[in-house]
Amino acid sequence: MGDVDSETGRLETFADGVIAIAITLLILEVKVPGVPGKRLGADVVHIWPSYAGYVVSFLTIGVIWVNHHHMFKLIRRTTHAFLMLNVVFLMTIAFLPWPTALVAAYIRDPSGRHVAAFVYGLTMVSIAVMFNLVWWYAAGRGRLLVAGIDPAAIARINRSYLMGPIVYGIAAAIAPVNAFVSLSIYAALAVYWLLPGTGPRAVGPSSDGGVRAEETS
Amino acid sequence: MGDVDSETGRLETFADGVIAIAITLLILEVKVPGVPGKRLGADVVHIWPSYAGYVVSFLTIGVIWVNHHHMFKLIRRTTHAFLMLNVVFLMTIAFLPWPTALVAAYIRDPSGRHVAAFVYGLTMVSIAVMFNLVWWYAAGRGRLLVAGIDPAAIARINRSYLMGPIVYGIAAAIAPVNAFVSLSIYAALAVYWLLPGTGPRAVGPSSDGGVRAEETS
Amino acid sequence: MGDVDSETGRLETFADGVIAIAITLLILEVKVPGVPGKRLGADVVHIWPSYAGYVVSFLTIGVIWVNHHHMFKLIRRTTHAFLMLNVVFLMTIAFLPWPTALVAAYIRDPSGRHVAAFVYGLTMVSIAVMFNLVWWYAAGRGRLLVAGIDPAAIARINRSYLMGPIVYGIAAAIAPVNAFVSLSIYAALAVYWLLPGTGPRAVGPSSDGGVRAEETS
Amino acid sequence: MGDVDSETGRLETFADGVIAIAITLLILEVKVPGVPGKRLGADVVHIWPSYAGYVVSFLTIGVIWVNHHHMFKLIRRTTHAFLMLNVVFLMTIAFLPWPTALVAAYIRDPSGRHVAAFVYGLTMVSIAVMFNLVWWYAAGRGRLLVAGIDPAAIARINRSYLMGPIVYGIAAAIAPVNAFVSLSIYAALAVYWLLPGTGPRAVGPSSDGGVRAEETS
Repeated sequence: MGDVDSETGRLETFADGVIAIAITLLILEVKVPGVPGKRLGADVVHIWPSYAGYVVSFLTIGVIWVNHHHMFKLIRRTTHAFLMLNVVFLMTIAFLPWPTALVAAYIRDPSGRHVAAFVYGLTMVSIAVMFNLVWWYAAGRGRLLVAGIDPAAIARINRSYLMGPIVYGIAAAIAPVNAFVSLSIYAALAVYWLLPGTGPRAVGPSSDGGVRAEETS
Repeated sequence: MGDVDSETGRLETFADGVIAIAITLLILEVKVPGVPGKRLGADVVHIWPSYAGYVVSFLTIGVIWVNHHHMFKLIRRTTHAFLMLNVVFLMTIAFLPWPTALVAAYIRDPSGRHVAAFVYGLTMVSIAVMFNLVWWYAAGRGRLLVAGIDPAAIARINRSYLMGPIVYGIAAAIAPVNAFVSLSIYAALAVYWLLPGTGPRAVGPSSDGGVRAEETS
Repeated sequence: MGDVDSETGRLETFADGVIAIAITLLILEVKVPGVPGKRLGADVVHIWPSYAGYVVSFLTIGVIWVNHHHMFKLIRRTTHAFLMLNVVFLMTIAFLPWPTALVAAYIRDPSGRHVAAFVYGLTMVSIAVMFNLVWWYAAGRGRLLVAGIDPAAIARINRSYLMGPIVYGIAAAIAPVNAFVSLSIYAALAVYWLLPGTGPRAVGPSSDGGVRAEETS
Repeated sequence: MGDVDSETGRLETFADGVIAIAITLLILEVKVPGVPGKRLGADVVHIWPSYAGYVVSFLTIGVIWVNHHHMFKLIRRTTHAFLMLNVVFLMTIAFLPWPTALVAAYIRDPSGRHVAAFVYGLTMVSIAVMFNLVWWYAAGRGRLLVAGIDPAAIARINRSYLMGPIVYGIAAAIAPVNAFVSLSIYAALAVYWLLPGTGPRAVGPSSDGGVRAEETS
């Protein structure tokens, strides 16, 4: 019998697996420049959008993984519906390599770049919405949470998670107008959430059943 | 020494790994539309069968993972034959990205779509048959199960698992006649099993050695 | 601090990861037939060598995983050299998708099939040799083993593991003469080791520190 | 609740996942030679740079994994910043399949090989720098370490880790002058660190809270 003591263990392992694979598959979208010739130096510079896409999407998925990790510190058990919500959440994350490649391929195309930036934004909105649904299901009436979490802390988490769909929705809405502004917002968000002291991870269960602030430096 | 307390642990980890990889590789079959041009907006809409295939196969594999997870809550140990049965089961799951790509590529081809839908169905029948064989081996004469499971509950699980090969067999048999009906059944099954209260997961070992109903809401 | 109680835990997790990925990547070598046309039915049959290669290599890697799993039940700790030997062992396994694709691509080529079957065999010999080196290092003077294993049991395991390099070496040597005989041996070995009662897995540490026979039916 | 006892557990699992996937994806860069023809024997020999790149990068990532494994034996907890540093570290490792393919594709190109060897070296420098940053953050003022580690041992580890950026920086700097010397250094380093008794892994927490030397034979 697999996980008696840690009921969420196998879900976390599976989620970590899917996220680790999706993040690592990003490199497959960075192509080796065509036929060998004397211009490799220029070619390697020319494909900078591929590197930029790799970095932005890698950091974005990395930040999502860290937040998923923090969320699950507050969750003590699973239900069938909760597993299924997580499967749909993972489905949106595992999709990200495709819009990443789309943006890298079409960023120099004056019309295509709007479409690509918009599709990237839609994917990010889907991820952020599913992340919220997973949390709402777990936290609604304390359904799956560990005991002793301050309701005010939960309200704070709710608000900070809600920023995700909103900011990505705004960035996606800008894409048809100005693709570069839209893409810059995606990049800025990945870097911003990487910084210490940002993001919705300020609460963890304390060993005495109360709430402790987590070190964020 | 790896897993003394949890004899099924390494099998579960390996199965989760293969399933997580198979589910994430699905995105590699969604291609970036050809040469940059002014039609990306139309191209991105035109390849909807790729998205649909991604969603249906992702949800299907996700549901299988959840059911595998539930099944292993009832299993307390492994044998060589059981490990090998699981390897063959995983072989059928890891095959699914290929028929998924086949359906997406040939759904607009009046003759090819019948073949593709049939191959997809055959793969699903293989997965469902192997899932049953894994369960039958484990549950036969209670060979590998935890103690204290109600025989009536096992009989109920047997019946519900048997639905898999039957419904997928029917959908596959319809493919040569009408590919769209066949494909719609695959999609409907993925969504149906995603819903709360469906599927063969209503039994788990209770901590006092008896059987408890699991929360399915 | 990661693994105090299970010193081999992280190595097993890493090995399971690499093996699970290598086994699942095999499907990427099964290609979707070219341009949509009215011949998909024939095309899907024509590429049977791809399916056969997928099945044989999947079962082969699966059997190796099961044996690795059994071996590690006897191992209680690691050293730097042992970790490195395992890395080289994993390097040979992760290589297998390539000769698998080579055989599938060249099986209809009267001259190429000899080369492909030989390369496949060389890869299998490398895997089998590394598997033996990993075991010899662990079992030599009982270096890394759990206590209380009967020396006669170790001698039995030594002999059975040695069969690997020998039979794959013979099959590889036959490849330049008759590729089909060589390939048939690879397939037969995968199926043979899948059967109950075969392979070097008849010993495990008993809970009282002695040796018990493992159920193999 | 996932990991109460082993606070670094989920980070190690995720890192192992990304590293295992990156190392296994290397095989996808070894291509099956073009159209079947009578020259497969020669073709298989001709693509030796692909095998060499596979071996060198596989061993290099393997050595990094082993060292990451050793490092985490000394770390007892995580912070948000530490998780993020690890995400960036993993981003550099997961990038390695691309320069590996670049070197294999351009090693016969008199001008391209300089660029490829330089890009490979830059990637290795990034990996080595991030490895050091991860360690410095963890070890700085003993921030995340287990108790009872001798400061002299930490100083020794600091020095040995610093070799990484320096030797890879030198090899990268040589690439524009002589690509083969540069590539030979990468290969030599992978093999060197594979040997027993090398590398920064001579310290582990002892069970009595002090420092013990680890067996390295």
